[in-house]
Amino acid sequence: MEGVTVERRDVLADAAIAVLADAGMRGLTHRAVDAAAGLAEGTSSYYFRTRAALLQACVDRLAAQTLAEVPRGGGPSDVDGLVDVSVAIVGRWLTADRARLVARWELALESTRRPELGTALRDAGRRIRERVAATLHGLGIADPERRADDLVACLDGLAFDQLAGAGPERDAAGLRAAVRDLVHGLVTAGPAPGPG
Amino acid sequence: MEGVTVERRDVLADAAIAVLADAGMRGLTHRAVDAAAGLAEGTSSYYFRTRAALLQACVDRLAAQTLAEVPRGGGPSDVDGLVDVSVAIVGRWLTADRARLVARWELALESTRRPELGTALRDAGRRIRERVAATLHGLGIADPERRADDLVACLDGLAFDQLAGAGPERDAAGLRAAVRDLVHGLVTAGPAPGPG
Repeated sequence: MEGVTVERRDVLADAAIAVLADAGMRGLTHRAVDAAAGLAEGTSSYYFRTRAALLQACVDRLAAQTLAEVPRGGGPSDVDGLVDVSVAIVGRWLTADRARLVARWELALESTRRPELGTALRDAGRRIRERVAATLHGLGIADPERRADDLVACLDGLAFDQLAGAGPERDAAGLRAAVRDLVHGLVTAGPAPGPG
Repeated sequence: MEGVTVERRDVLADAAIAVLADAGMRGLTHRAVDAAAGLAEGTSSYYFRTRAALLQACVDRLAAQTLAEVPRGGGPSDVDGLVDVSVAIVGRWLTADRARLVARWELALESTRRPELGTALRDAGRRIRERVAATLHGLGIADPERRADDLVACLDGLAFDQLAGAGPERDAAGLRAAVRDLVHGLVTAGPAPGPG
């Protein structure tokens, strides 16, 4: 029965993530999660007693899903390949993974007020950045850890700009051009001269 | 008396922005805004009858403040100067303007659900990007509009990563290096070869 229980927890966490994306922190209630999951009222509060437990379940689920998706090896063989992978990831964030992305940002903002939420977010974030750094290292790019940190932050910024921000709407070609220029700019441009 | 009324509205909007940053969308109530402003209960609901009006007041106030701060001309005379200006802006976001930044992100996420909020955010965002593009144009940088869009989105991403995201904490030197590499990478690197 363990398998069933685990699955039920994941279903509820996915429903909570969908509610967060659709209705924000203010709309996230146990009742809304039960409804979104198509389960009897009281189900989510049985598995996740408190609101804090529900938020933690969202964070843990997002972290597990993201880590399962970012490849651990067998990455691109050149910078153009890295562009392709980056474009694919950002493109998926903006379409199939849109709800997860909005929920992640909601939780990240909430973690400025509930530091305990930040622990799992930062842990997943660190492991993803390590995998990106390993890819950059494999491509022979200097200072791969720092470049990975910058690249992930900027790709997230482009996605936010596109999905919720104040920038112009980009079509697929425009988004690809932005990601391409960012990747090339960050990983192939040497550091600026001078102590700057 | 008009002047007094305008000032009172600004005081309330600033208080609402502070509440948004401190307590999130869920904590934003007329009562909390009155308390944060140190004004009698009922004051904010007198000026901003509905929750939607209160949110709109936050967006309008943020937009007006941001536009007042981004210089309209007399910008940097070279790319290193552009780095300095960018570092200063991001540095201020992370310190003195932290509450306004968190509130802006909260409102941006909420605008995915309340499209009317997105209008003022996008209008301010467009005007800021136009000013950045004018600066880039003055520096002789090719394709200044597109570079401005990318730069603003990525600086926002670096700030989010630092303030609420999952990236490593950067000290002042680390943040400066990231901004410098981003600016140099985006504005001095030519487009990648090929149709990309």
